[in-house]
Amino acid sequence: MARKQSLSGFPEHLPEERLVENYVLDTLRETFELHGFSSIETRSVETIDQLLRKGDIDKEVYAVSRLLDDAEDARSAAKKEKLALHFDLTVPFARYVVENAGYLNFPFMRYQIQKVWRGERPQEGRAREFTQADIDVVGDGALPFRYDVELALIIVESLSKLPIPDFKLRVNNRKLSEGFYRGIGLTDTAGVLRNIDKLEKIGPDAVAQLLKDELGATDEQAQAALSLASIRAEDTSFADQVRALGVSDELMEEGLVELTEVIGEAARRAPGKVIADLSIARGLDYYTGTVYETVLVGHEQLGSICSGGRYESLASNGKKTYPGVGLSIGVTRVVSRILSQGFATPTRKVPSAVLIALTNDEMWSGAQDLADQLRARGIACEVSATAAKFGKQIKYAEKRGIPFVWFISTNEDGSLKHEVKDIRTGEQGEASPENWMPPAEDLQVRIVPADSH
Amino acid sequence: MARKQSLSGFPEHLPEERLVENYVLDTLRETFELHGFSSIETRSVETIDQLLRKGDIDKEVYAVSRLLDDAEDARSAAKKEKLALHFDLTVPFARYVVENAGYLNFPFMRYQIQKVWRGERPQEGRAREFTQADIDVVGDGALPFRYDVELALIIVESLSKLPIPDFKLRVNNRKLSEGFYRGIGLTDTAGVLRNIDKLEKIGPDAVAQLLKDELGATDEQAQAALSLASIRAEDTSFADQVRALGVSDELMEEGLVELTEVIGEAARRAPGKVIADLSIARGLDYYTGTVYETVLVGHEQLGSICSGGRYESLASNGKKTYPGVGLSIGVTRVVSRILSQGFATPTRKVPSAVLIALTNDEMWSGAQDLADQLRARGIACEVSATAAKFGKQIKYAEKRGIPFVWFISTNEDGSLKHEVKDIRTGEQGEASPENWMPPAEDLQVRIVPADSH
Repeated sequence: MARKQSLSGFPEHLPEERLVENYVLDTLRETFELHGFSSIETRSVETIDQLLRKGDIDKEVYAVSRLLDDAEDARSAAKKEKLALHFDLTVPFARYVVENAGYLNFPFMRYQIQKVWRGERPQEGRAREFTQADIDVVGDGALPFRYDVELALIIVESLSKLPIPDFKLRVNNRKLSEGFYRGIGLTDTAGVLRNIDKLEKIGPDAVAQLLKDELGATDEQAQAALSLASIRAEDTSFADQVRALGVSDELMEEGLVELTEVIGEAARRAPGKVIADLSIARGLDYYTGTVYETVLVGHEQLGSICSGGRYESLASNGKKTYPGVGLSIGVTRVVSRILSQGFATPTRKVPSAVLIALTNDEMWSGAQDLADQLRARGIACEVSATAAKFGKQIKYAEKRGIPFVWFISTNEDGSLKHEVKDIRTGEQGEASPENWMPPAEDLQVRIVPADSH
Repeated sequence: MARKQSLSGFPEHLPEERLVENYVLDTLRETFELHGFSSIETRSVETIDQLLRKGDIDKEVYAVSRLLDDAEDARSAAKKEKLALHFDLTVPFARYVVENAGYLNFPFMRYQIQKVWRGERPQEGRAREFTQADIDVVGDGALPFRYDVELALIIVESLSKLPIPDFKLRVNNRKLSEGFYRGIGLTDTAGVLRNIDKLEKIGPDAVAQLLKDELGATDEQAQAALSLASIRAEDTSFADQVRALGVSDELMEEGLVELTEVIGEAARRAPGKVIADLSIARGLDYYTGTVYETVLVGHEQLGSICSGGRYESLASNGKKTYPGVGLSIGVTRVVSRILSQGFATPTRKVPSAVLIALTNDEMWSGAQDLADQLRARGIACEVSATAAKFGKQIKYAEKRGIPFVWFISTNEDGSLKHEVKDIRTGEQGEASPENWMPPAEDLQVRIVPADSH
């Protein structure tokens, strides 16, 4: 966006941009609810302990403290209150599930659309304040694997409804990778995953070097790990490719079966959208099985627009464990790309379909009565605030893209005459306050995808 | 709520409570859009300078700083970055208007529904994190007074659609009060307003004492100020009552004319809902004319559920000024009262209208095809994750209030037989995947007002 933002990393939209964002949010919400997901929100702050328990992101956390706790400095206040803004919605959700387990029905399917904060260096596609849209299912003690399949398909359906280019949901399974690494004798499987995660950024040679330098891998081990990571398939043929590498491990077999179930069903229900990609590692250490990432085709450098995975023990109170699986759509990242590339535009800048013009200032109250009649039929409308010249009132509508201007005048017999003008065509005709309706396509703002993508 | 919250002042809802909150939010949004208001959001943080420029609330502000700015302590980091969470949506909106003036069309009508944060002592109706729903109109240089009337009426319409008891929107005008105080010789009009604002909390005698002690008012001046504050009317008769006090002042006359315009139109369009109440002062010092507060009848101790006013110079870049008028609904305060008093309840706990039961695990994929057919008609539904006994699957639906369970079996000729059971009545009948619809009242979760209020 050419428009200057006053605080880097904290994007704000103009009203017409917000219409696009709202369309994305509404589409996601509607899709999630059609699949039976319940809406929840968690508080924006967590205790710092809770946040730092999982994941390697302490340097990105924003601490929150009362500005004037006079007696002590802000840091000790922050320590006392121990509050920070959440950096994702998964960790807060896990805490919410444990706290409210007695009030929830399991398996619990929820969606959550909220802002999160990360103090990273801002760049395109990476903001410090941004919106995520998450779906997760958690079970009480156990959760059928089937949800790993179902959630991927719900995400495919959700993203398919958005005005974005083709996308690929890349899926891997941690059991498969970790079992394989173990099978070739690399026991620090987390270390291998962490380095494999850098493949797209630094390339295979640098990753091989890291595996040798940091983890003491042999050339053969490093090459085997890279061979695994190079496997990609739109169908279950990836399993044969893995087995062809000649490694045998029980955990790996478990992962192969799981990933085969995801890719098999996805290939049938959403061909070409979900692919096995054995390079996917995901940095966060709470994933234990399936892991997901999603890229926009032709916009891979934007990074993943939807990621997630299966976590067996993120939500636990020590006695009970609530395993879950979930994905998180980076709404701000998707919307900023839609806006910067012009993938879609709103049909007008404001909700109003009609501006009711004033012939004189005394008409205002009567015009509001008319407006109420229109609104009762779901027609968004405004009344001019002053009886400026009609040209000026029409220009008011034009600037905002309001398609219709309504004029009220008095017939010779003293009765009121109502006329509506389509200011795009200039066409004007009599209209009845009781039953006039705009054409269906003008009733509400629509978000129109651009032809060219 | 009996349920224990883990962090005082940061309320979190259960899914069935969130349904009520979403109903309130959706209703407000729909009403605001029918009146032509555009949605915007501002970032959650402002510079501390910006926040402290207006209003007497520095002690409530939450500062935000990167957790690990290693070299310096958190307070100096906070000073450098100067960021804090916004405590309302008016100050951020004013900043947004000035920054984006070149991209906006004036008068600019926007609604904004977001969380805000205040580090106050939590109590019923007062949270540290809460949601506000604001509508404001700002002009470029000037703004017709008519919007002071219109916004009050939009709020009345919005609140009337919510499942809450009767309410009163109390209106006053700062010009009227300040002009009157000046007219009786009390020149520190802001000081008088600040004390009058305490009337409801400490009573008239204590306020009179404060006026005398702090501002040097005489008995007569204190009594005159209290006489003005005691005036209440559902119609424009308040003006005569003010004039009967025998004070004459130009600014007061201006305020009388303005307040008369608001009350006159409101008495006609929303009789009994909008009242002149000359005790309303509003603490914030940026209001310059009309001021609003709203109480739920019988729940006055909850405090105002919707407040606002006219501000002539809040949004200014030094050269240009953007006067505005707006009101802010305390959504969290309203919703917490709806929930604690049981003013409304959802018809079920989850979005799903239908659970598709599994006879065996192999059916899952076909059941998903059926689910997609139903969803294409707007019917929210779920598929059982496992082929548990029917009794268990029905219990799953029962617990969530899902009204219908769909069974698929095989006819003798090998074709599929579809049956739908209303688990509330036990009634079961054949159903067609192509055209079955639930009764309209079961299609979506509805929020049903309790009879008893």
